[in-house]
Amino acid sequence: MVDSNVATDETNRLIASNKVEGTAVYNRNGDRLGSVYNFMVDKRSGKAEYAVMSFGGFFGIGEEFHPLPWDMLTYDTDKGGYVVDLDKKLLEGGPRFSADKEPTYDRSYGQQVYGYYGVPYL
Amino acid sequence: MVDSNVATDETNRLIASNKVEGTAVYNRNGDRLGSVYNFMVDKRSGKAEYAVMSFGGFFGIGEEFHPLPWDMLTYDTDKGGYVVDLDKKLLEGGPRFSADKEPTYDRSYGQQVYGYYGVPYL
Repeated sequence: MVDSNVATDETNRLIASNKVEGTAVYNRNGDRLGSVYNFMVDKRSGKAEYAVMSFGGFFGIGEEFHPLPWDMLTYDTDKGGYVVDLDKKLLEGGPRFSADKEPTYDRSYGQQVYGYYGVPYL
Repeated sequence: MVDSNVATDETNRLIASNKVEGTAVYNRNGDRLGSVYNFMVDKRSGKAEYAVMSFGGFFGIGEEFHPLPWDMLTYDTDKGGYVVDLDKKLLEGGPRFSADKEPTYDRSYGQQVYGYYGVPYL
C-alpha cells in the first residue's frame, strides 16, 4: 500500500479536501466534463453527499454548478481526476444552479438530484 | 428544519468543503484553539477521516498542523465553528507536522493519531 511517490497531500486512500476542489472530472471516454468546485459534507457524519461540479463561465460569470451524488465519482489515479459514467448531455440537462442561487440541499432537493441520476437518496 | 437565514453555502445538515477550511475550532470553554486547515477524505467512501487543524505560524512560517479524528469535532451553529472537548495542552502535545513534512496517513499513523486522542481507529 505504501507509495514512495505519493503526493504530499494525498495518499492512496485519502485525499485532502482542498485537493478535491479543482480536480478534473472526466467521463468514461476520457472527455473532460469540468472540475469539482467543492463538495457538500454532512457536518455530523463527515460523509460527502454531493460533489459540486462547475463548468462553463469565466471568472464566475455564467458559471453553472451541477451537484452530483458523491458516490458517482470514482477517483482515477492514472488520470489524477475523477471519472463519472455519465453522458455530457445528461449532465447538461441535470439539476444545476448559478452562483447566486445556491440550493438549500434539503431532502426534496436530494431526492431530485439523486433521482435524476438514478441513485437512491437514503 | 428549514432555516430562512441559512447561509448560501451551508444548510443545517450540510456544509461546503471550502467552508470547513478556515472554520474556527474552540474548546468547551470557548477558547479558540485554531482553525481547520483542511480535512482528509476517503476517496471511495467520501468519509472525512481527519480534520487537520492549523495553528501558530505566520504565512506558513512555523505553522504546525495537527490532525484530529474527524468525529471529535462538533459543529456549533451558534459559534459558527467547531468545538472539541480537548485541553489545549493535550492538543499541543499531540501528533503534528510542519508544512513540508506531511505524513502518509497510513494505517499506523491513523492508529497513532486516533490512539493519542483515545478514539478507536477502525
